Amino acid sequence: MVTLAEVARRAKVTGATVSNVLRNPQKVKPETVERVMAAIRELGYRPNLTARALARGRTSTLALMLSNIANPFYPEFVLAAEREARKRGYFLLVCNTDDDPAITRAYLEQIAGSLASGIIVMNTDLGEGELTDVANRGVAVVLCMWEHVQPSRTLPCVTIDFAAAGALAATHLSGLGHRKFGALVGAGSGGPQTIRLDGFARALAAHGHSEKSLTVVHAHDSLESGYEATMGLLHRKPALTAIFATNDLMAIGAMQAAADLGKRVPDDLSVVGLTDIVLAHQFRPALTTVRLPTAEIAARSIALALEMVEGGTSTQDLYVVRAPELIVRESTGPAPSRRRRA
Amino acid sequence: MVTLAEVARRAKVTGATVSNVLRNPQKVKPETVERVMAAIRELGYRPNLTARALARGRTSTLALMLSNIANPFYPEFVLAAEREARKRGYFLLVCNTDDDPAITRAYLEQIAGSLASGIIVMNTDLGEGELTDVANRGVAVVLCMWEHVQPSRTLPCVTIDFAAAGALAATHLSGLGHRKFGALVGAGSGGPQTIRLDGFARALAAHGHSEKSLTVVHAHDSLESGYEATMGLLHRKPALTAIFATNDLMAIGAMQAAADLGKRVPDDLSVVGLTDIVLAHQFRPALTTVRLPTAEIAARSIALALEMVEGGTSTQDLYVVRAPELIVRESTGPAPSRRRRA
Repeated sequence: MVTLAEVARRAKVTGATVSNVLRNPQKVKPETVERVMAAIRELGYRPNLTARALARGRTSTLALMLSNIANPFYPEFVLAAEREARKRGYFLLVCNTDDDPAITRAYLEQIAGSLASGIIVMNTDLGEGELTDVANRGVAVVLCMWEHVQPSRTLPCVTIDFAAAGALAATHLSGLGHRKFGALVGAGSGGPQTIRLDGFARALAAHGHSEKSLTVVHAHDSLESGYEATMGLLHRKPALTAIFATNDLMAIGAMQAAADLGKRVPDDLSVVGLTDIVLAHQFRPALTTVRLPTAEIAARSIALALEMVEGGTSTQDLYVVRAPELIVRESTGPAPSRRRRA
Repeated sequence: MVTLAEVARRAKVTGATVSNVLRNPQKVKPETVERVMAAIRELGYRPNLTARALARGRTSTLALMLSNIANPFYPEFVLAAEREARKRGYFLLVCNTDDDPAITRAYLEQIAGSLASGIIVMNTDLGEGELTDVANRGVAVVLCMWEHVQPSRTLPCVTIDFAAAGALAATHLSGLGHRKFGALVGAGSGGPQTIRLDGFARALAAHGHSEKSLTVVHAHDSLESGYEATMGLLHRKPALTAIFATNDLMAIGAMQAAADLGKRVPDDLSVVGLTDIVLAHQFRPALTTVRLPTAEIAARSIALALEMVEGGTSTQDLYVVRAPELIVRESTGPAPSRRRRA
């Protein structure tokens, strides 16, 4: 491996000067910059990250834009994405946009193509148009956890079959004998999680349940919002015996609301979440949920961004990571009517 | 505000060339680089972040080194630090070191002084010596949540009075009439949280409890480890009525262990945590804990790093952020013996 000292010898300068050229070229005499850069090229020296970025005209950093680091799904995703990036010699710049399109825009303007050569976008504050503009400037843009009926026509997407995830929850609850269902539909910055709901509702219909058997309420992706929504839902529909929440935080809030209303989970009320965040198995009762393959989504997104960065290519492909799976824990059980008959 | 177009006019080049000079100076003729840099200086142009970094010889990015993003304390800290950094026009590069000194070292080698002009170090995988070496290369290094008996002699630290936090827990439990205490002492990458324990133990002594009234077990900073440690502790000392855990995750694990052993919290066992992560108030029973001023620690650390970066100065000061406070929730109550007498 070529060392900085060899570059310095070839260019007839000190190591400190080579380092200066790589870090602060404007502080070095132009002729010296030229001589050092020539030596680097001739020897095939691989300097440190920023230096390499200067030499290649791009950085070795990817950025991950997400809407809310305080939602526990994101740290879990960050952990997986960061490991994958590091394995490949890249750093991951995590940008928390606080659910604010203006912040997303500011980050993109400042880092896309300069600090970061590739951007993985998990929040959808911005329209595809603005993101496509960024991609058109030569930045690798990957949409991750894309959750719309249509795939993007201009940008690559990494996603999962969210409708299948909802269907798994419905089939599980229907099989347990439940007949009256509630659904808590979350909404992050990407809008309501309607595909998850649609999958749930269609599967219920396929299992012979009428439309009237399902009551839908909208909430936000938080424990507190799931709690409030469930309080309202159980007040209006006290005969519900099963609740599907389109994400785990809301499902945990639903279990807490049930407890505060004196309903036992799962004896009086079954609750199913979606995602399988760490808290899902840590909570008591442990949450039955539909697991998303978080680490695989992260790895696929990083790999796709790097293919684009390193190959200098672009793609509009849609990558659907392997199917979600149902994880049965303590929060679901037979419907109370069936239980009584037993 | 001076625009890129004005710089281009002054230097008699196109805007694209100015942009090239700022991003890829080695691709531009040295004379042109000189002319553009001169125009930038004369006009006081503030180019975008990377460009500004090149012009000033440093980047507008801070890095935050932490040991484990999956521990919910860190996302909460990141959120606060990122907001503070952004308010001041800086980006925050979050580096998750996975409790591995080799990864910490690799991040430091690659980004310190190049991608990041200042580093906030929350993990203590590395010794002070290695970090001081980084600081000696002109990088602002701030030790955050420093938890050793002696402050660093070479680097600035931002911390809190961890002993006072432990003492608050002891005073609370003693005041509730408890006489037999357990302590779960956590250990992250920085080693055991002995200052928290010492504060707890000394306050117990000050309230007249003998040394024998306290049983100490060691664990790791996780819910699972708190659970296991509590199972062992209650097996050995079934008469314990109060447990202090040096962090909230372990305290929540302790509550789950108590539940699995048929002990009611707080009727049979009181549990106090330390930190006040979001989960502490979300969990049932809600956790009594000693709140650390997370947002203030984050803001102070960012501010200190930026003072050093922007002022080009260094300091070895120790900043102790305001005192922790006790937050009483549902997990603590009168000692069972007192309860029976009542």
